[in-house]
Amino acid sequence: MNSKWTILEQKMREVGIQTLIITDPKHVYYLTGFLSNPHERFLSAVFSIGKQPFLLVPELDEENARSAADTMAVVTHRDTDNPYEVLKNNLKCSVGTIGFEKDHMSVARFEQLQESLSFARYLDVGPWLRQLRNRKSKEEISKIRHAVALIEQVLLETLPHVKTGITENELVAEIEYLIRKVGAEGPAFDSMVLSGKKTALPHGVPGHQPIANGDLLMFDIGLYADGYASDITRTYGVGHLTEPLQQMYNTVLAANEAAIQAIKPGVSYASIDKAARDVIEEAGYGPYFIHRLGHGLGIDVHEFPSVHGENELLLEESNVFTVEPGIYVPGVGGVRIEDDVAVTATGVEVLTTLPKELTYL
Amino acid sequence: MNSKWTILEQKMREVGIQTLIITDPKHVYYLTGFLSNPHERFLSAVFSIGKQPFLLVPELDEENARSAADTMAVVTHRDTDNPYEVLKNNLKCSVGTIGFEKDHMSVARFEQLQESLSFARYLDVGPWLRQLRNRKSKEEISKIRHAVALIEQVLLETLPHVKTGITENELVAEIEYLIRKVGAEGPAFDSMVLSGKKTALPHGVPGHQPIANGDLLMFDIGLYADGYASDITRTYGVGHLTEPLQQMYNTVLAANEAAIQAIKPGVSYASIDKAARDVIEEAGYGPYFIHRLGHGLGIDVHEFPSVHGENELLLEESNVFTVEPGIYVPGVGGVRIEDDVAVTATGVEVLTTLPKELTYL
Repeated sequence: MNSKWTILEQKMREVGIQTLIITDPKHVYYLTGFLSNPHERFLSAVFSIGKQPFLLVPELDEENARSAADTMAVVTHRDTDNPYEVLKNNLKCSVGTIGFEKDHMSVARFEQLQESLSFARYLDVGPWLRQLRNRKSKEEISKIRHAVALIEQVLLETLPHVKTGITENELVAEIEYLIRKVGAEGPAFDSMVLSGKKTALPHGVPGHQPIANGDLLMFDIGLYADGYASDITRTYGVGHLTEPLQQMYNTVLAANEAAIQAIKPGVSYASIDKAARDVIEEAGYGPYFIHRLGHGLGIDVHEFPSVHGENELLLEESNVFTVEPGIYVPGVGGVRIEDDVAVTATGVEVLTTLPKELTYL
Repeated sequence: MNSKWTILEQKMREVGIQTLIITDPKHVYYLTGFLSNPHERFLSAVFSIGKQPFLLVPELDEENARSAADTMAVVTHRDTDNPYEVLKNNLKCSVGTIGFEKDHMSVARFEQLQESLSFARYLDVGPWLRQLRNRKSKEEISKIRHAVALIEQVLLETLPHVKTGITENELVAEIEYLIRKVGAEGPAFDSMVLSGKKTALPHGVPGHQPIANGDLLMFDIGLYADGYASDITRTYGVGHLTEPLQQMYNTVLAANEAAIQAIKPGVSYASIDKAARDVIEEAGYGPYFIHRLGHGLGIDVHEFPSVHGENELLLEESNVFTVEPGIYVPGVGGVRIEDDVAVTATGVEVLTTLPKELTYL
């Protein structure tokens, strides 16, 4: 039994929970080492106090589960089985209170679970897992650092391909090819390359638009390596940029640096967001910074906590998150600069190492 | 207002639902034309009888939403807003009964929704949307046909790269590069290339294993083009295959063909699964066909209905799904042959066109 289970078991005893039914595939991975995408099939890691924990997996994942999670028993269900009945039959004890993840389980699944385990009481343990995952181990931080190094290598190898006339889509193809080539498992999200006025769309979709001289060119890319994500953004000028675009760039850069300066254990996530937002507001771009400063980063590319102006949670050593202020002026263009950072005992380690000064390609 | 809304409105009147709150991003796309991945943010298409329907989107998606869904009003929320309160304030009417998707909304979200809209009754309308989406229009089938043609082109251009010594991962990199190059939006799922004994893992993960002479080599790949998915599997022999592997291959092929032969409107999904399963069982491989025959295909790569032996739903013209029997013998190897098919007025159109006879690379 690993230390994560030990912490959970202690919490279970405190609250009076007998059984955990964990269904978020990333939580299952975190706790057992078995990573899978069950699609619409039912996957669960089940842990009852004093019993052998088991994985309940679709039959076609049985071999993968056995080899990845060697300390767990593995129970399978077929596509024609009711997995909740299989679960019930394997609990082999009267279940009193069940812990589950309220933010992951659908209402439909919850009703089916309650139908099979009708005498149980249910409590949300999502926050336990989020908090547990928010304190990364040295090994986890090292994996994230590696994922960042790989995506930086990808971006560095992509930049020489940038020339006027090449399209956003062609650069995406190059990036995703390189993501595989450097040995990553794959992109952590839809790789984003936006140019010109489209950079004003924080969630724009790359298209057949050819890159032109004078364009802003934004890369928001990340990958999974060894189960951990990176997520970085760099914005460049193609050839030259107008004075207002340069000013926009330097404001975002100053905001990014102000936020990073403010990071240390004991301050709130809200205060980090504010450090960046103040810079942007003072420069007059306040209404154009239309999203939070960042988000937790780890097994999921977006995970707890949300780094925004109303999150009074305090930073702790070994939290890892993104710092990604942006300015988006519709019809003109946008700039975002995103770093991945880890909180240290006294301050911050910026995991991203690529330069941030305005660079022309 | 499009015909989908008209059908939904009629159902709403029949059941006594005043407002639909649709949150599955793919349902939102199906109904409004706005496709996005909101990650953990709240996205919803809201439709009240007799009112202007609106999209509630994160502020950073506003421009995309306005241009994609030009008949909808667009309402936004910021990361620091409570989106459920924004929703409530925009309903501008007393809501009686609300329709939502029970299989998509998490228990946590449902509780927050109920907190903001506390006087409402809630009914599941997930089945309405699944049924609506199961009957594809000619235009939708044509998009799926196109997505199939593109992934076939990708596979055909990948095969010349196969040689002993190349790794599974290198082939995946090639495939994902080609997926972008042929103009698709991206892979529809993690591209799978497995070789040798690993083919016995239906959900195996490609690795650094070099391809060797005598190997089975399995490609399970698909892509999204214009919002619609393809999903095909072909298994090859590298150089030569042992007699038992050849027999395994030909059994799967016969099962695939038996299922396709059985497809026409009015028969059950269970009977299609049985047609394939009978062939495999008669050949003595019954215990090694450890998953359902297939799944619906469209805006989602896995969608309603599930094609398995207990699904008594009847096939109708314009249903589109996969036919993918497989045999997986642990420690030996596996074969799967997957076609995408559309039900026609009198039978079936096989959208996949690549040959299926055992082929050596």
